[in-house]
Amino acid sequence: MSIVDEFNDYRSRMNDKITSSDNKVLKRIFNLDTNAFSEGALDRRTKEMLGLVSSMVLRCDDCIRYHLGKCKEEGLTTAQVYEIFAIANLVGGTIVIPHLRRAVEYWEALGEEDNG
Amino acid sequence: MSIVDEFNDYRSRMNDKITSSDNKVLKRIFNLDTNAFSEGALDRRTKEMLGLVSSMVLRCDDCIRYHLGKCKEEGLTTAQVYEIFAIANLVGGTIVIPHLRRAVEYWEALGEEDNG
Amino acid sequence: MSIVDEFNDYRSRMNDKITSSDNKVLKRIFNLDTNAFSEGALDRRTKEMLGLVSSMVLRCDDCIRYHLGKCKEEGLTTAQVYEIFAIANLVGGTIVIPHLRRAVEYWEALGEEDNG
Amino acid sequence: MSIVDEFNDYRSRMNDKITSSDNKVLKRIFNLDTNAFSEGALDRRTKEMLGLVSSMVLRCDDCIRYHLGKCKEEGLTTAQVYEIFAIANLVGGTIVIPHLRRAVEYWEALGEEDNG
Amino acid sequence: MSIVDEFNDYRSRMNDKITSSDNKVLKRIFNLDTNAFSEGALDRRTKEMLGLVSSMVLRCDDCIRYHLGKCKEEGLTTAQVYEIFAIANLVGGTIVIPHLRRAVEYWEALGEEDNG
Amino acid sequence: MSIVDEFNDYRSRMNDKITSSDNKVLKRIFNLDTNAFSEGALDRRTKEMLGLVSSMVLRCDDCIRYHLGKCKEEGLTTAQVYEIFAIANLVGGTIVIPHLRRAVEYWEALGEEDNG
Repeated sequence: MSIVDEFNDYRSRMNDKITSSDNKVLKRIFNLDTNAFSEGALDRRTKEMLGLVSSMVLRCDDCIRYHLGKCKEEGLTTAQVYEIFAIANLVGGTIVIPHLRRAVEYWEALGEEDNG
Repeated sequence: MSIVDEFNDYRSRMNDKITSSDNKVLKRIFNLDTNAFSEGALDRRTKEMLGLVSSMVLRCDDCIRYHLGKCKEEGLTTAQVYEIFAIANLVGGTIVIPHLRRAVEYWEALGEEDNG
Repeated sequence: MSIVDEFNDYRSRMNDKITSSDNKVLKRIFNLDTNAFSEGALDRRTKEMLGLVSSMVLRCDDCIRYHLGKCKEEGLTTAQVYEIFAIANLVGGTIVIPHLRRAVEYWEALGEEDNG
Repeated sequence: MSIVDEFNDYRSRMNDKITSSDNKVLKRIFNLDTNAFSEGALDRRTKEMLGLVSSMVLRCDDCIRYHLGKCKEEGLTTAQVYEIFAIANLVGGTIVIPHLRRAVEYWEALGEEDNG
Repeated sequence: MSIVDEFNDYRSRMNDKITSSDNKVLKRIFNLDTNAFSEGALDRRTKEMLGLVSSMVLRCDDCIRYHLGKCKEEGLTTAQVYEIFAIANLVGGTIVIPHLRRAVEYWEALGEEDNG
Repeated sequence: MSIVDEFNDYRSRMNDKITSSDNKVLKRIFNLDTNAFSEGALDRRTKEMLGLVSSMVLRCDDCIRYHLGKCKEEGLTTAQVYEIFAIANLVGGTIVIPHLRRAVEYWEALGEEDNG
């Protein structure tokens, strides 16, 4: 299984458990997530870029992977994704570089999926 | 070996190395940890909840695992633990969700230990 | 005007602006905040303590002030609040100490309000 | 002096000191900042939005102020800026709210400058 | 009163309150702080530099001020302090720059004290 | 393959991809990294210690591993490295302990390399 499928499988399986629990606050947080990234005064494409850069400066590998998948769906090019990486690594510092390495690996895996 | 045993084994083994080193400051930090979470003006149960929520907003998987184990020992129910998760994910944001997924998995593994 | 009133005034005034804006996601986040800290499987008093310790390890002075006000309302004693401070400064490190200093000042100001 | 002028004055004065020092690394970091946010595979407007959301999830008031000024120059509407705020407060959590309050105040001050 | 005196006065006054409280954990954290930065396998001068860079990447103005004062006492030159600033701003990112501006201001104020 | 080789291999391979991309900002960040840690008003040995403590308080395992390797090259003793660990765990808090455990494991692996 590719790192893309592995990530998506675990994510879906655990999210199902969480959203099928009795905790209303957690369920609403998940709903809000859908709302915040849907088309509005800003388009979805821009919002996914905002999600990606936020995930990277906050140094969360899984969040980066998720938004890289979405950025791929929105048709971002490699040059565009690298400019987001550059801003994240400048603003967030070189402490972000290990996450950059894993992001580059994942972005390539997403490309291979396309051609798979 | 379960994820619970794996975590506890590595943790004990490395903690032993650290506390048997010559560094007094590190040893005292480990002692302070025991003191801070012992019965006082607040009971142990409350303090373990404080430890869990702190670990989650600071996004440290191993710290979450440790305090989940302690919360289990203190008899917290799944509904109570989920309310702590909810506060952590609201205060700390959706960047905490990947840690929530792993926490849910670990909490379930702790339950299976009980029945093991 | 005391530091307590000054904080509450600014907070209320700006929150009103935000919740009267057209942004649904922000409004729902504010609603969720009320939900997450209301009575449930855990009581309100415990939840406010969770809010306080989270605010402190994340080093947010205004959030600390808000939860100190709530902890006062819930009847926490100074000894109890200091045990929360101790856990926050141990888990979060000495980088939290400047926030501890300001928290101690604010907690005293809350006491003077009582007697005012 | 408005909060906008006060911020810009202090910022310029101190940046001048730093960039006129002998430290090459610091000077190059300042140069890189200009490069990273200039037109490229992504336009300047998008990049300023990326800068704003990064500053907000990392909870840096001065950085937020700086990028709000730039977003104003790029012609972003209040509805658009609030959608960035919403994403930042969802991803970064309610711990971001105090920074949101100050951001709303600064955004309004920028509007008044326009009409001044 | 200079910003140096103002900082030191508030700091001493509040630290006295904290260390004269009944909370043993907090008192021991304060003691540990003295131990960790005293002469050992590494000299005091090196340790104060470690304290300064840690404070800066963690973005705590008061902690930066405290360690700048100590670095001054240890005889560090401006060129040396700027190299620490450079590492902190590279590792921690441009989000550190507002703290750098305030650190430069404080370092200058410390120099004026000398000549005062 | 040892954990040291595994880390270095992945790191080199991915860094090559990043520095051979067309993104100038990322390339310059990598260059700046070399500059910031080279001999200057402070020697390389001191700078590597600054890099290590920064990586530890910011809780980045890969960054810690990288700087531990460099500290080994600079001839730091175990007692000296442990004093850096102690400062990092005091300033950054017990939330750093899981990273300390992995750092101790890596430091030992570096020693075995020597004797390998």
